[in-house]
Amino acid sequence: MDIFIEPIGRLINEFSRLPGVGKKTALRYAYRVVDMSEADARAFADAILNVKRKVKYCKTCGGFSEEDECAICKTRDRSVICVVKDPRDVAAIEKLHEFKGVYHVLHGVIDPMEGVGPNDIRIKELLARIGEGGVKEVIVATNPDVSGDATALYLARLIKPLGVPVTRLAHGIPVGSEIEYTDDVTLTRAFVERNPL
Amino acid sequence: MDIFIEPIGRLINEFSRLPGVGKKTALRYAYRVVDMSEADARAFADAILNVKRKVKYCKTCGGFSEEDECAICKTRDRSVICVVKDPRDVAAIEKLHEFKGVYHVLHGVIDPMEGVGPNDIRIKELLARIGEGGVKEVIVATNPDVSGDATALYLARLIKPLGVPVTRLAHGIPVGSEIEYTDDVTLTRAFVERNPL
Repeated sequence: MDIFIEPIGRLINEFSRLPGVGKKTALRYAYRVVDMSEADARAFADAILNVKRKVKYCKTCGGFSEEDECAICKTRDRSVICVVKDPRDVAAIEKLHEFKGVYHVLHGVIDPMEGVGPNDIRIKELLARIGEGGVKEVIVATNPDVSGDATALYLARLIKPLGVPVTRLAHGIPVGSEIEYTDDVTLTRAFVERNPL
Repeated sequence: MDIFIEPIGRLINEFSRLPGVGKKTALRYAYRVVDMSEADARAFADAILNVKRKVKYCKTCGGFSEEDECAICKTRDRSVICVVKDPRDVAAIEKLHEFKGVYHVLHGVIDPMEGVGPNDIRIKELLARIGEGGVKEVIVATNPDVSGDATALYLARLIKPLGVPVTRLAHGIPVGSEIEYTDDVTLTRAFVERNPL
């Protein structure tokens, strides 16, 4: 005999598929659903289906969008393009309320070990946007790892000859942390990218 | 402008209602759903609705059941009844694969401070089951706190005169822990409930 009746066991399994959720946590979540009102459970289920139904990618930047073109592309300064790897990176930068330009989501980075070449990510779409003119700066915000660095260099080599400046997010000691506990690679980059005072 | 498009923001809100889930975790969960196949998302949503649709309480024991009477009540030894506060406690005990009897879920404990009296929980249903005869032992497995203790004593006073022995789960030092770090109340109970060697 199973410990849980089938509907509860099934919901536990579904919750277990979420990242970082083990059986115990999944069980707590399932019990919460059991305790929900019918209307709340329906709203929850509907929100899940709704995401699959409505979340598309913006035809211009490749970020998450409900419409063909996202609200950011439609309304913001198109002269500065911030290049990111993943649609999720857009939200991470948006929450700063700092950047006023638009994005370009590559949907990946160049990674020969994984068989991902320049043609497998949205580089030609980026070049096409730049080709339309009016772009004053491209900020590359790929992750500071081997493939992120390689992609940034590759983009710089392609775009700089077009007369558009390419910049990259600064790397260095995280604000609030201590030099003593900063890892070697980060500390080295902080030296290399040191700024005049 | 919102950081997230509406369908993703809505799903983050829904996930945030689960116990112990903050905005960051809810965001991770929401992205996982975005990455799911249509079929997986549908299965997830369906499992949520299914729980609300199918989970009822067993007419005999009051535990979770898909049918009028649960599989435990239908198939197990009815001469021993384990009394618990909550339907969730049944699964916690079932996973031991140790107890072979049936359950009785009170759906609460006596708690005058919260206005819960003996008539507000399923005590008369328990007495009715005992009245049908054949019950050889009632094991009270309410939590070891003030209201759990009070409920256990109340039940013992009602049931013992019917000629049915009433026992309670042992309290003491958790297996694997150390006396030095055991809290005072638990250590005191361990003394009071000490056993002959």
